[in-house]
Amino acid sequence: GLSTAAQNISMYGHYTQDLGAYAKEEAARLREKSGRRPSATERSLSLENPDYDNGRCGKCCSCMLRCKKFLIACVGEDWIFLILLGLFMGLISWGMDYGIDYCLHAQKWVYMSLENNVFLQYLAWVTHAVVLITFSAGFTQLLGSHAVGSGIPEMKTILRGVVLKEYLTCKTFVAKVVSLTSALGSGMPLGKEGPFVHIACLCAAMLSRFMSVFGNVYQNKTRYIEMLSAASAVGLASCFAAPIGGVLFSIEATGTVFLVRNYWRGFLAATISALFFRILAVWDTEEETITALFKTRFSTDFPFDLKELLAFAVLGIASGILGALFVYLNRLIFEFIRNQNFIKNFFMKRRLLYPVLVTILISTLTFPPGFGQFMGSQLTQKESLLSFFDNRTWSKPGTAEDYDYPDFSYAWKHPQVNVFVTLGLFVFMKFWMSALAITMPVPCGSFIPTFVIGAAFGRLAGECMAAWFPDGIYSDGTVYPIVPGAYAVAGAAALSGAVSHTVSTAVIIFELTGQISYLLPVMIAVILANVVAQSFQPSLYDSMIKIKKLPYLPELGWGHNEKYNIRVKDFMTRDVTYITLNCCYRDLQDVLQAGDHLKTLALLKSSQSRILLGSIERVELQAVVSQQLGRPRRLEYLRERAAAKRKRQSVVSHLSSEGISQKATLEVRFQVNQVWSSTPRRTSLCLQRLHSIFCLEPSEKKAMAASLSLHDSSPRLQIEEWEESQLDEPVDFDNCKIEPAPFQLVEHTSLHKTHTMFSLLRLDHAYVTSIGRLIGMVSLKELQKAIDGSLEVKGAKVRPPMASLRDVRSSSCNIEIEATELHKLWDQYNSRSLPRKHLPSDSDEKS
Amino acid sequence: GLSTAAQNISMYGHYTQDLGAYAKEEAARLREKSGRRPSATERSLSLENPDYDNGRCGKCCSCMLRCKKFLIACVGEDWIFLILLGLFMGLISWGMDYGIDYCLHAQKWVYMSLENNVFLQYLAWVTHAVVLITFSAGFTQLLGSHAVGSGIPEMKTILRGVVLKEYLTCKTFVAKVVSLTSALGSGMPLGKEGPFVHIACLCAAMLSRFMSVFGNVYQNKTRYIEMLSAASAVGLASCFAAPIGGVLFSIEATGTVFLVRNYWRGFLAATISALFFRILAVWDTEEETITALFKTRFSTDFPFDLKELLAFAVLGIASGILGALFVYLNRLIFEFIRNQNFIKNFFMKRRLLYPVLVTILISTLTFPPGFGQFMGSQLTQKESLLSFFDNRTWSKPGTAEDYDYPDFSYAWKHPQVNVFVTLGLFVFMKFWMSALAITMPVPCGSFIPTFVIGAAFGRLAGECMAAWFPDGIYSDGTVYPIVPGAYAVAGAAALSGAVSHTVSTAVIIFELTGQISYLLPVMIAVILANVVAQSFQPSLYDSMIKIKKLPYLPELGWGHNEKYNIRVKDFMTRDVTYITLNCCYRDLQDVLQAGDHLKTLALLKSSQSRILLGSIERVELQAVVSQQLGRPRRLEYLRERAAAKRKRQSVVSHLSSEGISQKATLEVRFQVNQVWSSTPRRTSLCLQRLHSIFCLEPSEKKAMAASLSLHDSSPRLQIEEWEESQLDEPVDFDNCKIEPAPFQLVEHTSLHKTHTMFSLLRLDHAYVTSIGRLIGMVSLKELQKAIDGSLEVKGAKVRPPMASLRDVRSSSCNIEIEATELHKLWDQYNSRSLPRKHLPSDSDEKS
Repeated sequence: GLSTAAQNISMYGHYTQDLGAYAKEEAARLREKSGRRPSATERSLSLENPDYDNGRCGKCCSCMLRCKKFLIACVGEDWIFLILLGLFMGLISWGMDYGIDYCLHAQKWVYMSLENNVFLQYLAWVTHAVVLITFSAGFTQLLGSHAVGSGIPEMKTILRGVVLKEYLTCKTFVAKVVSLTSALGSGMPLGKEGPFVHIACLCAAMLSRFMSVFGNVYQNKTRYIEMLSAASAVGLASCFAAPIGGVLFSIEATGTVFLVRNYWRGFLAATISALFFRILAVWDTEEETITALFKTRFSTDFPFDLKELLAFAVLGIASGILGALFVYLNRLIFEFIRNQNFIKNFFMKRRLLYPVLVTILISTLTFPPGFGQFMGSQLTQKESLLSFFDNRTWSKPGTAEDYDYPDFSYAWKHPQVNVFVTLGLFVFMKFWMSALAITMPVPCGSFIPTFVIGAAFGRLAGECMAAWFPDGIYSDGTVYPIVPGAYAVAGAAALSGAVSHTVSTAVIIFELTGQISYLLPVMIAVILANVVAQSFQPSLYDSMIKIKKLPYLPELGWGHNEKYNIRVKDFMTRDVTYITLNCCYRDLQDVLQAGDHLKTLALLKSSQSRILLGSIERVELQAVVSQQLGRPRRLEYLRERAAAKRKRQSVVSHLSSEGISQKATLEVRFQVNQVWSSTPRRTSLCLQRLHSIFCLEPSEKKAMAASLSLHDSSPRLQIEEWEESQLDEPVDFDNCKIEPAPFQLVEHTSLHKTHTMFSLLRLDHAYVTSIGRLIGMVSLKELQKAIDGSLEVKGAKVRPPMASLRDVRSSSCNIEIEATELHKLWDQYNSRSLPRKHLPSDSDEKS
Repeated sequence: GLSTAAQNISMYGHYTQDLGAYAKEEAARLREKSGRRPSATERSLSLENPDYDNGRCGKCCSCMLRCKKFLIACVGEDWIFLILLGLFMGLISWGMDYGIDYCLHAQKWVYMSLENNVFLQYLAWVTHAVVLITFSAGFTQLLGSHAVGSGIPEMKTILRGVVLKEYLTCKTFVAKVVSLTSALGSGMPLGKEGPFVHIACLCAAMLSRFMSVFGNVYQNKTRYIEMLSAASAVGLASCFAAPIGGVLFSIEATGTVFLVRNYWRGFLAATISALFFRILAVWDTEEETITALFKTRFSTDFPFDLKELLAFAVLGIASGILGALFVYLNRLIFEFIRNQNFIKNFFMKRRLLYPVLVTILISTLTFPPGFGQFMGSQLTQKESLLSFFDNRTWSKPGTAEDYDYPDFSYAWKHPQVNVFVTLGLFVFMKFWMSALAITMPVPCGSFIPTFVIGAAFGRLAGECMAAWFPDGIYSDGTVYPIVPGAYAVAGAAALSGAVSHTVSTAVIIFELTGQISYLLPVMIAVILANVVAQSFQPSLYDSMIKIKKLPYLPELGWGHNEKYNIRVKDFMTRDVTYITLNCCYRDLQDVLQAGDHLKTLALLKSSQSRILLGSIERVELQAVVSQQLGRPRRLEYLRERAAAKRKRQSVVSHLSSEGISQKATLEVRFQVNQVWSSTPRRTSLCLQRLHSIFCLEPSEKKAMAASLSLHDSSPRLQIEEWEESQLDEPVDFDNCKIEPAPFQLVEHTSLHKTHTMFSLLRLDHAYVTSIGRLIGMVSLKELQKAIDGSLEVKGAKVRPPMASLRDVRSSSCNIEIEATELHKLWDQYNSRSLPRKHLPSDSDEKS
């Protein structure tokens, strides 16, 4: 299921090398275009038009219209949207929690009621997990596999400006919500947070589509992206009741650049959703009032001694290593399953088998009366977290001050083994289990699992510290005990921060525990964990992006000064596919058929001057070619020929309407008229060639052939000849939409600046020009290679081949490096070998 | 002092309309260029060159060199820089706090020791404040007035990419640190935070300059800006020991766009500085361990009831109104002082009088035994804050649980009047006092004053609530008392957030108080305060930017959907000053003399084709003209003429060396050789014209005239003629650095997108092109006008004249609005009246 998902992704992401998909898509687009009914917006706009005051109620109508306009203007305001989004997400999060709790309690209840028979208990325990996971995986499969996984990698890609339409549909929303609830209800070590970011974005996309009935601002793409990025903040906020942390985490995890203008959107929506999420809990009388989700009760008067900072720093570094290891292990599992052909084929045929096997393995190992008793398996993830954050020390019994709040420490105090063993086992087992569990094809996140493991690891470190200094730390005449719970807090933030490469987990944990007195230790641990993890491995999300082969832009590592010395000319591709103003349809068709993965093509004035006029979208060109050789013109040609040859115009139209269905003919007529009025020119056709552009349905094809042979007695040859002449005509770009100012770079732009530009403007390609002439192109692919090249330098012997000998000289004048002396440019202009006309055969050979 | 400061700003900001400054600057630059010694970097690089292994110690040398290289590479790493910056700032902040505390204690001590004589007490109280403020204002004046004010507006401008060099000098640093300490030591209602952001940036700039000795990465401009933005986070973090809040506040207050890549820099430096700042306090035995700065002790088990959220919301709205009022009042005072000619002239002559008068007024009113007793003036700002955050209720005596921590509530419990009156008076008096005090020409911030006022206001609201519900709020069978301190916390965050238009004050207050249990109420109050304040007034920083006339880019208001419908063609200027490839020196000179405020000029292929080739910096052009008519060529010409006429070459050089000093001639010879070898062409000269470009020093001028009359017997006329012919020559752009890809927009780009681009790329102008032809330009000025135009629409009757009738039609297709049909472009291309050649006389008329 995994590799198919990846294929689907690439198909819908428009960056496929496969032309078939393109042609199909194009055909669909054109068909839709021609037969398009006015959209909801247009209809509402035509309604608004106050021309139609019919008789007496004109005034009333105009008043109504004004009211409606006001209402629409209101609904168009961002804050309405954000508040609605916040409320929805709060509700969904609470509802889902309710469902998950119900499932988990059911498991516990069945398990408890079978206390007499261990085998039945085991059966119930495993069956519960297997059934829920199977349902989750099956349901996801049923509604399309886009709901699989956490969704943060995909959101990161979407917010970078890449269109992945299938990821934001209603179907995916349903699949994600239902499957996630059942997956989490199974008790597997999975998280809710990642998928929730995706769910919030889905919710925003749907809401946006719904609201566009009222105001057409919702159709603006920039705004849409801004709303999505606000929504991704809501996702986390509604899970954790952590509005600030949610906003920051979403910025760090999903964005590369952030508009401050957008800040308040995230905060508003996140606060509303967190508030509503907690208010629902109060109304449900689950809580007395709004408090933190995992409230801690540490002393605030003397939280920690200065010397303990060192211990926190060590904990941070260890968490960083652990985090990098987690990412590595997870990728290893993914790649093992994908690359071993036997395993891949085996699981491809039995798609539900893999999650079932994984679930059986994990739930067997965590069965409480079995091995689970040594790793606190009778607790849910939430209860484990609460127990880790407890401010009593387990390794030193009897020192607790008050016992009036729930105590889950019994799970860790096994009569045979001590606390260190249970905690250590928990960390070790959960570590690989979580890395394995998140490879299952169900909606699941990795945040909470790493959070729990980190908390356990921190608790272990804290208990060790407490055992090492049983009397606490002596400072200024007073002795202060060590609080292992605080280490758990720091460990949770550090490990989850290391895995996701974010610093804001520190903020999340403060909001989650309701205490901020460990501000500095936690910050230190999180920063050090990030430093360590970032130098070893990419973040889990980037790793996923790589595994799923989504188009991504790797982050520039930090402190790599080489990146200032690598220039665009070192890594740009000089082999740019372009079209010229005076090209003919044949060139166009050849260029389009050549496998190229970019959505747009450069338009030059001529291949001699190479002056860049702008860029044209591939689909636009496809439309131009289709118009020249497409069905309407073909039919028109038939009609014409028939008219010319047999002089029986009325009969022909009757005959052709027999071949095709009535409706199609009407449509065709309409289209023909359109085409005719706009471009009155000679036409030609060729079935084979048409087939390569249009996928004819078999029935249509037959009808065509029939009508062709019916009307046309001349040999095929003649048609082909005509068609060739048609292709040799110069292209008429008149109705083609061009983007007149595509983004341009210069040869001397540094890698660092190029990366910044690509991040800032969410580019996916840029042309490299020299005084107006196109000399190359940089796309995400080239940039990726260049960055990977420059990153590899760090740990190694080789210099990047491109950064030749420039370091010393260029870096001394890199303040104004962008500006170049004109005579150099002119020299290049003149000396450069006259660019060959682009030969499509070249690219054909490659593809 | 204020208006001069503004003038200075505009001079150094390169956006002046005054050409004189430019010419001078240019001359200085050229002189520096020709006589430039190799910079430190170059020297260190030449040292690095391992060619010079002299004899036996070659190996040792190369080893040393390798070590040095490694060291340099290390020092070049960002984290070293950030850690150093953090340590420095922590130290400075702590040292400054120490100094301020010392001053304040001295004031208190003198005041206390004179307890018997009220008049002497008054004298001491006022004198202390006046002396310190006068010293502060005088010292600032002495070292340049760039240290005046908070510095956040300037940093915002600098981080937008505008070069304000004088704001980041060592002199300014000293002025700011010393003056700020003495200003805050005076006890006036001023803040440390704003200036500290500036100080951190100054520190980073200086450190960067120092570090550039080791590694030349520090010279990269992008990196420099990135480091400055990290430094601005450090500023606040080191003041408040609030790393997270500091980072967020600096992002919100100084940035318009934010690279996530930059995030960790801010966090690392801020954490280090906050840590060091607090560790210093512990070492100083001021504190037992690291805790929050203004620790609160609220109950965490049941912090607030759901119904109290409403009260917090009302508090937020009221704070928002108050915040907008504060900004308005502050601007009113500024404008009153500046616009009233009499007052302006009066204070311009006696620069120190204004701060003295303000200080006397404020300190008289706050004199504790006088009126000050009704508004708790015996407390410092810090003590007031601590008292407001107290969790005991003042209006209901005797309910406090424990008394083991300092209690400042006595200041508010006046025997004659009740708490409500003292708090109300405090809010009212401090409100206008703070607004007045921050107009003094001393380094001062507004954050802490608004913070204190907000806390008092919140406390007042809290005490009112406590009086209204004396028994607390009944919920679920238990009665919970109201905590007025929590309202103070919310009020402080809300008011300071409203004044600065930031949400992150909420985070700051959590870090400052060490408690986060009031997360949601505070967030609600802050968000509502922001909403209210933003709809009435700009932020205090933006208001300052407007007052100081710094080049700024106003934020797009929120929810203004018109901005999507306004296009570039509606607000671009069509009157672009340009030069063409085939223009002559006269055109160049005319264009340069025409008053235009932009740093760069467009370079077109020809005025017929209007194809944009790139842009050239004004200074480059100035250099080209100077080279054609400048001193070296003039001397060369003299020499040549003399040689030709009198055939006595050796005598001439002796003679000319009598006119000018020996050193100058040597220099000239060198230059002449350079010029000669690069551009061998006929030359000419004219003193008057030269004067307009070069400001000759009088002695030089005389020498010139002497040598002219000495060598040259021909009439002036001939020279002028020659010079005219010289000016008619086509310009040789060969050695001119051009920027080959200036940023381009299209006519149809929306205002929203233009704003985004300008913010993202820190542009200050962009050319508008249509298929390669220049048709207009948008600079910050035009953009400002367009935004102000579209913002005015909101509250008013008028439509922006530009957004004509497009709303309905264009918005329905605004998904692909950027792309235009080619034939439309060509139509415009052909139909557009042939652009007239740019006549410099036009712009002369305007200027």
